[in-house]
Amino acid sequence: MSLYGGVEAGGTKFVCVIAGGPDDIRAEAKFPTTQPQETLGKVIAFFKENQIKTKQPLASIGVACFGPIDLNPKSAKFGYITTTPKPGWQDTDVIGTLGQSLGLPVAMDTDVNVAAFGEGVWGAGQGLEDFVYLTIGTGIGGGGLSNGRPIHGLVHPEMGHMRLPHDWQDDPFPGFCIYHGDCLEGMACGPALQKRWGRPAETFPLDHKIWDLESTYLALAVHNLVCILSPRRVILGGGVMQQTHLFPLIRAKAKTFLNQYVAAPEILADIDHFIVPPGLGHRAGVLGAVALAKQIAP
Amino acid sequence: MSLYGGVEAGGTKFVCVIAGGPDDIRAEAKFPTTQPQETLGKVIAFFKENQIKTKQPLASIGVACFGPIDLNPKSAKFGYITTTPKPGWQDTDVIGTLGQSLGLPVAMDTDVNVAAFGEGVWGAGQGLEDFVYLTIGTGIGGGGLSNGRPIHGLVHPEMGHMRLPHDWQDDPFPGFCIYHGDCLEGMACGPALQKRWGRPAETFPLDHKIWDLESTYLALAVHNLVCILSPRRVILGGGVMQQTHLFPLIRAKAKTFLNQYVAAPEILADIDHFIVPPGLGHRAGVLGAVALAKQIAP
Repeated sequence: MSLYGGVEAGGTKFVCVIAGGPDDIRAEAKFPTTQPQETLGKVIAFFKENQIKTKQPLASIGVACFGPIDLNPKSAKFGYITTTPKPGWQDTDVIGTLGQSLGLPVAMDTDVNVAAFGEGVWGAGQGLEDFVYLTIGTGIGGGGLSNGRPIHGLVHPEMGHMRLPHDWQDDPFPGFCIYHGDCLEGMACGPALQKRWGRPAETFPLDHKIWDLESTYLALAVHNLVCILSPRRVILGGGVMQQTHLFPLIRAKAKTFLNQYVAAPEILADIDHFIVPPGLGHRAGVLGAVALAKQIAP
Repeated sequence: MSLYGGVEAGGTKFVCVIAGGPDDIRAEAKFPTTQPQETLGKVIAFFKENQIKTKQPLASIGVACFGPIDLNPKSAKFGYITTTPKPGWQDTDVIGTLGQSLGLPVAMDTDVNVAAFGEGVWGAGQGLEDFVYLTIGTGIGGGGLSNGRPIHGLVHPEMGHMRLPHDWQDDPFPGFCIYHGDCLEGMACGPALQKRWGRPAETFPLDHKIWDLESTYLALAVHNLVCILSPRRVILGGGVMQQTHLFPLIRAKAKTFLNQYVAAPEILADIDHFIVPPGLGHRAGVLGAVALAKQIAP
């Protein structure tokens, strides 16, 4: 069985694994994101050391990377992190650095696209050609497949920044997004909840209004995703969705909002399997990176 | 040069053409949509008579059809119009009827998907793997390509029914959609404008508030399409967009709403080529049907 390297390159921390698949993780490491040379150096050292330990060379490396990144194969900066506000990381050649140091093929995509890809290969999107994965955490991001292929287009989706109805009387919070104010992320990501209610969301009782509003915004987002992409499933992950009592609320409201307009039994009769948590849990990113590596393995 | 049959099967009227391409239309007919047997009979007669006149057999037929239609090749009702409220048209076998009577291969898709396909082959989406086509007329519908393939998914997109911010103080109109009230279609389609303002939109002067609100809703729709699909271009067609003075308003507002978040030069520096009218004008549907026919020709 071949082994692959997976890297979840986040703005706060990096996670690296050596794995054959989701049930076959041979080594794992986490470290904080510091400067690029130091951080990528730790990634390289992890793979070199563990290849010796496992006595098996890796076939390839996959990276789920914070962005923005350049994924245009014709670009001189293909495989780079580009204009990130994160100090020191502008113009960092991730694919080149890892590929040259390790002598392995490297595939990379945005963190959320890779997580979506992983859910498609091993998680809740398995076997589906069209699905969406939305992660609701410190921000809100979304990715997915259409006709079996990741949605990229001009740049990549920024699903967290869609605009939604906002009942200002019911919820006077102006939103948290420095670009769009009360977009989905501005109203419903973890820090928006913290700012709106003054303390962490998970400290509120189940009957508090925080959950009513949160499920409304997320159900409206599901409504828009259904109308625009017609997915076969919507996967909701990320830290906020650890509050699993949100799922039945979101399902009920999404059905109410769609109001039987999309006459698919998958929505009308089986919403519990239409709006679901990730199959890979919090490991969708790093396991997606392993899946990405597997796809490009020689 | 091969010739193809194109049918735009609308709820109000049918348009049929025999053509080699957009600049080579050999015959054309329009007739009202009556009962299925009569209407499809006229389609068949048109193609039979004109094949004799042009002395050239057709290679194939494409149909841009009003819906809902069954496009699942495994379904017993593949190629049927299914649960339409249009009297007499429930369970009408369009592909079977035309194919058997004419002895030709028949391809069919929803009206808006076919129009989008046509724009991709011969119109404003030519050469683009990822674009959206939105038609704003008696309703609002949208289709498009992702990775070069039409977006279908679970059913097909219903982009007109996305939900948007609604400033009730500025615009107290509750919306016109019997399913969703103030969704995009409910606020911005032709009949919604007529109902909101009491007379046809085109009778209002350019500085009237109707255009300010209309361009706001359409720019918010573009914002959401950009965030969810990341298209390389957004094509806006349909009767309402005949008011071409809407384009500069929509472009300016879409840039304001996106607020430089999506850092693509196509949006930041060249919005005039990012939000555009259809290249095939009001013929996107029937020429899309010809393009569809061409694709399946033996």
